[in-house]
Formats: sequence, structure tokens, C-alpha cells
Amino acid sequence: MKANARAVYSKNGLFESAVIERRDLQPDDVLIEIQYAGICHSDIHTARGEWGEVQYPLVPGHEIAGIVVEVGSQVTKFKVGDRVGVGCMVDSCGECENCRNGEEQYCLQGNIGTYASVDRYGQYTQGGYSTHIVVREDFVVRIPDALGLDVAAPLLCAGITTYSPLRHWGVGPGKRVAVVGFGGLGHMAVKLAHAMGAEVTVLSQSLKKKEDGLRLGADHYYATSDPETFQKLAGTFDLIVNTVSAKIDINAYMSLLKTDGTLVNVGAPPEPLAVHVFPLILHRRSFAGSAIGGIRETQEMLDFCAEHGVAPEIEVISADQIDEAWERVLASDVRYRFVIDVSTMKQAQ
Amino acid sequence: MKANARAVYSKNGLFESAVIERRDLQPDDVLIEIQYAGICHSDIHTARGEWGEVQYPLVPGHEIAGIVVEVGSQVTKFKVGDRVGVGCMVDSCGECENCRNGEEQYCLQGNIGTYASVDRYGQYTQGGYSTHIVVREDFVVRIPDALGLDVAAPLLCAGITTYSPLRHWGVGPGKRVAVVGFGGLGHMAVKLAHAMGAEVTVLSQSLKKKEDGLRLGADHYYATSDPETFQKLAGTFDLIVNTVSAKIDINAYMSLLKTDGTLVNVGAPPEPLAVHVFPLILHRRSFAGSAIGGIRETQEMLDFCAEHGVAPEIEVISADQIDEAWERVLASDVRYRFVIDVSTMKQAQ
Repeated sequence: MKANARAVYSKNGLFESAVIERRDLQPDDVLIEIQYAGICHSDIHTARGEWGEVQYPLVPGHEIAGIVVEVGSQVTKFKVGDRVGVGCMVDSCGECENCRNGEEQYCLQGNIGTYASVDRYGQYTQGGYSTHIVVREDFVVRIPDALGLDVAAPLLCAGITTYSPLRHWGVGPGKRVAVVGFGGLGHMAVKLAHAMGAEVTVLSQSLKKKEDGLRLGADHYYATSDPETFQKLAGTFDLIVNTVSAKIDINAYMSLLKTDGTLVNVGAPPEPLAVHVFPLILHRRSFAGSAIGGIRETQEMLDFCAEHGVAPEIEVISADQIDEAWERVLASDVRYRFVIDVSTMKQAQ
Repeated sequence: MKANARAVYSKNGLFESAVIERRDLQPDDVLIEIQYAGICHSDIHTARGEWGEVQYPLVPGHEIAGIVVEVGSQVTKFKVGDRVGVGCMVDSCGECENCRNGEEQYCLQGNIGTYASVDRYGQYTQGGYSTHIVVREDFVVRIPDALGLDVAAPLLCAGITTYSPLRHWGVGPGKRVAVVGFGGLGHMAVKLAHAMGAEVTVLSQSLKKKEDGLRLGADHYYATSDPETFQKLAGTFDLIVNTVSAKIDINAYMSLLKTDGTLVNVGAPPEPLAVHVFPLILHRRSFAGSAIGGIRETQEMLDFCAEHGVAPEIEVISADQIDEAWERVLASDVRYRFVIDVSTMKQAQ
């Protein structure tokens, strides 16, 4: 079947209308009519070839929310009319240790990305800036009624990327969590950690968004441009979630951890970071990384958000505004996530 | 009281006989007649000012085994004749969160080192290359009868430094552990991990010590100078204990970890390590550090070694051979720990 989409046709090309082919429904597939698609910074990295060569035309988008409009003959989990979401991956081997443990994001064969990957049928995957998508039901999650589809979309990447490390490192009441960077990922980390009962501190370059930070759940908000911040907060945190992909002085942040504390990166700078080992040894600190979350955990995250009233701050745009939105993402000029209203793409027949 | 010792009088000076003053026994002190003192690479770093300025004369030594010869009026844990040990620290604040948790090595005020520190009485501490030492009973551990005092000595640093991270990261049956470097620390890590029931792999620059490695408990032994090692072992280990203080390509080792695996440094290179973040993110790996262990855990380690027949491989030397032994330590020419027979120092009156 055909779907309308917005695609880029070259590394630095602008978006153009496109009609793409979605595969015929296999027995375990669901066909989703997409209503909203979030814009993630990694859409830009990928589309511009910054993370490796890609094929064009490319349709980005891995924060997808919509409605099931058709199901394959063996689908058991979903029916037509269900409110569903799709995140950063659409398949994995299903057989390795990690897949069997429900951590498909760490599939030892490598999971299949929602776009710019090759799926099990040999087709190049195309993402959510599109009216329809066909996905194996095991990689589709249910969006609870309490969550609007517009705010649900960014949860599929920004939400799970921050939820998973918060859970993995045991965040809850009595824990002190710092979030480095207050953008799309950072503001979700703050809301989620707050909802989990932790004491939350934002570490942002400036105090420009301090009011937002405190309103959205942070207990404290500090500017990292002020050296006093690092003196004042030394040895404070159980967990630091670093949402900044740019190169930062990781050792300064490491010193803010308590004994046994962990600094976890959810974004990766292209260059290595210079890590001093003494601060790790002196307080058995860890420097770690974390990637999205498994499908089971993604469902758990959506249910958690519905139960606790957690949702991203979004700015809904039309399909014609994607280029402009990308420029604003690059300029950090978004509070805090762009979501494309896919109804503004003309439907393919 | 006075004690005989061997001290260095300058950064690069050779050892000379010295008579040092030990404090009068306080109510909670025990006086130990030292019988054996291990030689640790950090003795050399410290004495030569490589880890910061120190005072001279300096008596190194923090792997101490001996017999209690006198106890203070309020000592309850030890009596004259007890076989005891002292490791890298002789005091801590006793009041911070970490001290209260029995992790005095991470004392938030900084613990008091066995040598080259200033103790609570304002005195500069002097270590175990000496006939006697006075230590608060809370920082003295009991050496089980099954362990000779000569082999017990190195357990107080090399033993606990490797035992603690193995325990902290849950090593046991079914776990795969790699040990980087096969020297004083490395050979203890192998013996301990093997005794804990893990599958143990040595990663050493060459295969020179392979026979020893397999004899002492390793299941596998690979040369890191062979690039195939890194291909063959990719994604294999739950824990890698890095005992090498020199700068190594940490990313190559990181790729050998399974999902959720940890690489823990127990030694610290003076310069930062360039850590790539993608390999951390892709499998939620951690890069961590660990320092010795608490007093309670040190006792647990000694009891474990006694129970499992674990002891270091040592070469016993006389007090006149320390200079030569240090040169051999620097040349990695020791299998696997030098221990000074302190009876070869003339007793002070």
C-alpha cells in the first residue's frame, strides 16, 4: 500500500512530499494510521548522514502515535481502533539472550531501526513522518486513554530513553537525581524522576529555563556556567542523567556523585570523553550509557505516565513546518518537543 | 616507644635504617610486633612523590601482618598474642554515612593512610617496613590460623583491592570475569574470582605467564598484543577488573563486556582515559573504579581466603633487599609479591 510522507532526498535537502510504499500486511503485522509524530534530534543526525551513510529518500520519525486500521490474520494483541505507538525500533532477532529478556534495544544481532534500517523482508525502513506504517505487533505498544496521542508521541523516544535509566538505577523516594541539559530529553527526565519521588536537580548551562524547570518538577536548578555550582553540589547525587550529546567536562560532573553514584549518558558525543580515573576509584563511581528501553518497559513507561499525569511539553506543527522546526531544534529553540500533526499531510489513495 | 624501620630520606633516596617513634598506647590502641610487610607498587609511587608531596623520612608499607604484643585499657577485640593485620588505612572519621556503613575506605573526610598521612593526634603516619606499629583496634583485622603471616600480608592491600570489586559486582558461579594484567593485583584477582566460582580469563600483554595463570586458577589466558583476542572475546564478560595503572585503550576492553557489564579500574593512570560513549550506550555498559575495601569486608576477605585456601604467591626478602625489590617491581620482575621478613631488622630497645 502507499502512504503519504515527508522525505529528505539528500544530506542537506529540505523536506518534500513523497508517496512511499508500505509492505503488505503480514500475518503478525498491524497497519497504523499515524496521527502524530515527534521530532527527535537524532532524526536530524541520521538524515544528514552524521551517524553514517543512509539511503535517500529518507522519511525520519520514531516517535509515532496513531490508530490501528487493519490487523494481520494472526495478530492477537491489537484490534482495529486501538490507540497505539511505535518507537525507535520495529524488529529484533527475538532469539538472543537480550531479546528473550525483553531488552530488544540491546539485541545482539542489532535491532531494526524504525527508519534507515533494513527489515527482515529486505526493505529499507521509513519512519513516522508519514500517514501510515506497518509494524509487527510485538513492536507496537498501547497508548492508555488518559494520554493524548499528541503528547504520547514523544514518550516513545524521549520518554523511554530517560525512564529506562531512572528505573535501572533505582530512582525513587530518598534518591537525589541530577539531569544535565533541559531540552526534549532533559525535561522528560525531570518530570519522570519527580513522579518517581526523587529529589531532582537540573544542571543547565544557564538559568534561562529555571522557571520552567521548577514548574515541571525540579526541586533545584543550577547553572553549570557558574563554577560555584560544582563546589556546592560536590558529592550530592545518586544518579546523574546526562542528556547533552555535546562534549562536556565529564570529570566535573563526576565529582557531583556520591559514593556508588552513576553518571549515565543517554546521548553520545562523536568524540571520546577524557575521563579521569581517580574520581571513579575514590568513591566507586560509575560512568555508564543507556539506550531507549525494551518493548515491555516502553509499555510500562506509558502506563506510568498515564497514571502519574506525566506528559511532555509540546508544540504541534503542520507537515509544512518541519524544515523550520529542525532549524529550531538545532538552535535549542523549542519548549520542549515538536510534534507533527500528520493529518496535515494529504492522504494517499 | 621506638621502633626500628627502613625509611627513604628523599624522593629518589635508597633505604636506610631508621629508628622511629610510635605513639604511646591510647586506650583503644593495640601495639603490633610486625613480622611481615608486603611491598606494593603504591609504596613506590608515594615515596617518590609521584602522587603528591610527602614528608621525609618516610617509612612505606601497608600490607602488615604481625602479633599483638600490648593492648590499650579499653581494647575489647584483641589480646596479646593474637595474629593480626593492618592494611592501607589506620583511621577514619567514624561518623559519616560511609564510615557508618562500614566503608571507611570511602570516608567523606578522607581516611587516614597507614603512611604519609596525618593521624588524629597530629602525627605523620609511618608504615609497615618497621618492627612495630600502634593502631586503633577498629582498624586491625584478625588473621585466621590457616593463613601464614607471610602470605597474609599482601592480602591486606592486593587481596582486598581485588576482592571488594569482585563481591560488589556479584561475581560467582555462572559469571565470566576477565582480569587485565597478571601481576601482584592480577594474580590475586584470578585466585579470588576462581574461588568464588567464576569463569576467569586473564588478559595480559603476552603469554609469558600463561602457565602460571592457568595453574593459579584462570580458565583462559589471552595476549592483548594479539588483535584477534579482541575479536574473539567481544561481548563476553560480565566484569573486567583492570589492574593495570598504565594508560590502555579502554574502548577495546569495553567492547569485551556483555550487556550490563562493568569494567572496573583498581589502579589509576595519572592521565585521563579517552572513553567512547557509544559502546557504553549500545549495551548499557559501565566504566567504574574501586578502592580497597572496608574493615569489615577486609576481615571477610581474610576469612574467605582461609576457608578456600587462597593466598598470594610471594617471594620473601630481607630488609636489606628492599631497594633491589623495588627495582624489580618497577621492571615487573616479581612472581607475584615481595614480602619483607621484618625479623631481619634489628630490634630497637
